[in-house]
Order: sequence, then structure tokens, then C-alpha cells
Amino acid sequence: MSEEAWSREEFEQQLRALGRSYHIHHPFNVMLNSGRASVEQIRGWVANRYYYQRSIPMKDAAIISNCPDREVRRRWTLRILDHDGYGDTAGGIEAWLRLAEAVGLEREYVESLRELVPGVRFAVDAYVNFARQAPWQEAVCSSLTELFAPQIHEQRLANWPTYYPWIEREGLAYFQSRISLAQRDVRHGLEITLDHFRTRAQQRRALEILQFKLDVLWAMNDAMAQRYGVTS
Amino acid sequence: MSEEAWSREEFEQQLRALGRSYHIHHPFNVMLNSGRASVEQIRGWVANRYYYQRSIPMKDAAIISNCPDREVRRRWTLRILDHDGYGDTAGGIEAWLRLAEAVGLEREYVESLRELVPGVRFAVDAYVNFARQAPWQEAVCSSLTELFAPQIHEQRLANWPTYYPWIEREGLAYFQSRISLAQRDVRHGLEITLDHFRTRAQQRRALEILQFKLDVLWAMNDAMAQRYGVTS
Repeated sequence: MSEEAWSREEFEQQLRALGRSYHIHHPFNVMLNSGRASVEQIRGWVANRYYYQRSIPMKDAAIISNCPDREVRRRWTLRILDHDGYGDTAGGIEAWLRLAEAVGLEREYVESLRELVPGVRFAVDAYVNFARQAPWQEAVCSSLTELFAPQIHEQRLANWPTYYPWIEREGLAYFQSRISLAQRDVRHGLEITLDHFRTRAQQRRALEILQFKLDVLWAMNDAMAQRYGVTS
Repeated sequence: MSEEAWSREEFEQQLRALGRSYHIHHPFNVMLNSGRASVEQIRGWVANRYYYQRSIPMKDAAIISNCPDREVRRRWTLRILDHDGYGDTAGGIEAWLRLAEAVGLEREYVESLRELVPGVRFAVDAYVNFARQAPWQEAVCSSLTELFAPQIHEQRLANWPTYYPWIEREGLAYFQSRISLAQRDVRHGLEITLDHFRTRAQQRRALEILQFKLDVLWAMNDAMAQRYGVTS
């Protein structure tokens, strides 16, 4: 006999419970956010994470490309505008490049991807390819690590100015902007996920998908820890 | 010995010359634009062409999804906004649904795709799948049938009010809006194409790609002619 579906509330709780494997707990990230990172470790993280930032609008475009629902597309397109910018609005990728400059990297160097660790590239590409190939509702579900993002950005905003006074304060603007945007975005993604995955089997599939995305973020940190070391 | 590349001007002329097989010359379209179409033939065309309209933002999102160049993405995203609309701006798909209502179709019927002829679906899907799978510059090149679009829209605007007075005039707003947008868009697409396809072999490849897209539009008309007939 097949199991009964979880209620909407219980399903959401199950999704949120996966936050226990969010990369906020990864030793490399814990090091960054507790003031133990060297200039080189910070720079390595910023340069590598740039590839994730650059790929996010491509991931969002993949979702739109697979989605025949115009209302969903209209809302999802805002994410591309947020990251790539529009008109005179610079956008999140530009904010990330300013962070790069604030930690002493040249933007051309970061954009060249010469610092990109292969394991980071593979993890990010796995995410974008999933969004290209999976049904759009599954790709939306994979974006739900946004449930956990505000906390990690808040940590950075709270701790970095104290631990790393050598980073120009304006460089941290990216983290500030993402807190409200991530909250807005995750409501939409969560709504779609709670609506789409209805049976217990589907709900379990949603958990697997979110776990996959958590693994992507974790693997990025593994690869950076391997390259730049973890200072304890 | 390999042939010398065409100059930029000559290459553009070669691309434009393919306009001889634009569907403006297809018997089904000639019938529509010379006043010989019945109510049923007009409705059939509007309902089927809706699938193309609905798929265009998905095609454009596929290009963005494959494009690591933020400047190109920023400009290309405008196309999604044009078609899907944003904020209080309704967009091209909504304008098409109003055309559908103006010719006496219910929007829900059109959106349901119950009138969609399989051959039209396959042709449109071939276009979207090409954009998903090809390098983004090739997908951009495939959009260059916009070179020929203003003329076909102008024909409709000029002739339909006379030939088909039973169609509410406001229903034709879509054609009006596309004339200026297609001109803006095609300059960008042409620039990318002329920059990217440099050797004679690449230039020939660009011509093949544009021919493929012309075939898509022609095949849509073939399928509609088969279903609704061509009145001479």
C-alpha cells in the first residue's frame, strides 16, 4: 500500500529540515564566517563563487525555456533581471565583481575563470544542466536552497566587517541585496513545489532534488577546501 | 584550397537573399493576405500560430540559458519581456490572444491547444529544441527570419481591415507592435551573426541555419494548408 501524502505543512517542514546539510555547516564556510580565513582563502572563494553567480541566470533561463506557463515565466524572468541587471540597474553579478575588487582581485581575472577549480565548475554545471534537462517544476524545486540563503548572507554581513576590516565595506552590498530578494524568490519557488509534488512518492522526489542541490553547494566547498585548505 | 570568406556586406546580402523562401510566399499565407481566406481559415491560422507565439519566449530563454556573455543576455532578455509582458505591460502573447478573440475564438480554447495541428507543433518544437541544443550564436542566427518579418506584418496591417472587416480593428495591434520591435531585434541578431561566422565555411553554416528556420515557418504553413485548405 502506498503511503499517504504529507500535508502541505509537513511537506514544507521536511524540505526545511534538509537545511541541516546546507553548506553553512561546511568547514570551509565555517572558516570563512568565523574570521579564520586568509586573504588568499577569501580571494579563492570569491573568484570561484563567481562562476556560480554567472551561471545562475543561465539556470533561470533554462527553467523559463522549459516552462509553457506564462504567469510563471513572467515572475521567473525577474530573477534574470536581478542577476544580470537591466537598464541602469547593475544587478547581482556586477555586485559580485565589485566584491571581487573589494577583496583585491581584478575583475578581468575573475571573469577569465583562470582561478576556477575544476570541481567547482563541475558542480555548478551539474546544476545548470539539471535545470536544462529536468521538468521545470523539478528545476524550480532545486532552487529551494534559497530557504537557507538569508541566514548565510546575514552571517557574512554581521561578521566580515569585524573579521576582515581590509575588505572595503561597499563590497559587501551583494549580501545585503540578496536577503530580501531571496525571501521574495523562495516564496514563489516554494508555492510551485508545494503545488506540484502531491503524492508521497512525488514529495520524496522533491526532497531528493533539494538534496542534490545541497550537494552541489557542498561539493563546491569541498573543491575549494581542497585547493585553498581549511585553517582551524 | 579553402574559399575566401565573404565580406561582411556580401555575407549579409547572402543572408537576406534567403528571403526568397520566406513564408510570405507560401500559398496559404498568400491566400490570407490577398483576402481569399474564410473565417475558418483565419481562425485556424490564428489558433495554430498561437503555439509559435507561446514558444518564442521559451526559445529566447534557451539562448540566454546557453549564453555566458552577460551583455548579450541583458539585451536578449528584453525579448522575453516583450512577449510575456511585465508589470502592467501585457506583452505580445496577450496581444495575440486579443487577436484570437477579435476573430471570434475563445482564449481558453486557443490556450488549450486543441486546435493545434501536429505538423505545426513539430515544426515549432524543432525550432525551440534547436535553440536549446545549439551553440547560442547559432540559435541567434536562426532568429534572423526577423529580417523579413516587418514586410509580412505590414501586409497584414494594410490588407486585413479591407479584406476582413469582420475582424475588430484593435485585434491587429500585435502586427503593429512587432514592426518596430523586429527591426530593433534583428539589428542585434545580425550583429552577433556577422561577428561570429567569419570563415566561408562558417558563413555557409549560417545560411544553412537560417534556411532551417525558414523551413520551420514554411512547414507550419504546409501543415495548416493541409488541414484548412487553400482557396484560390
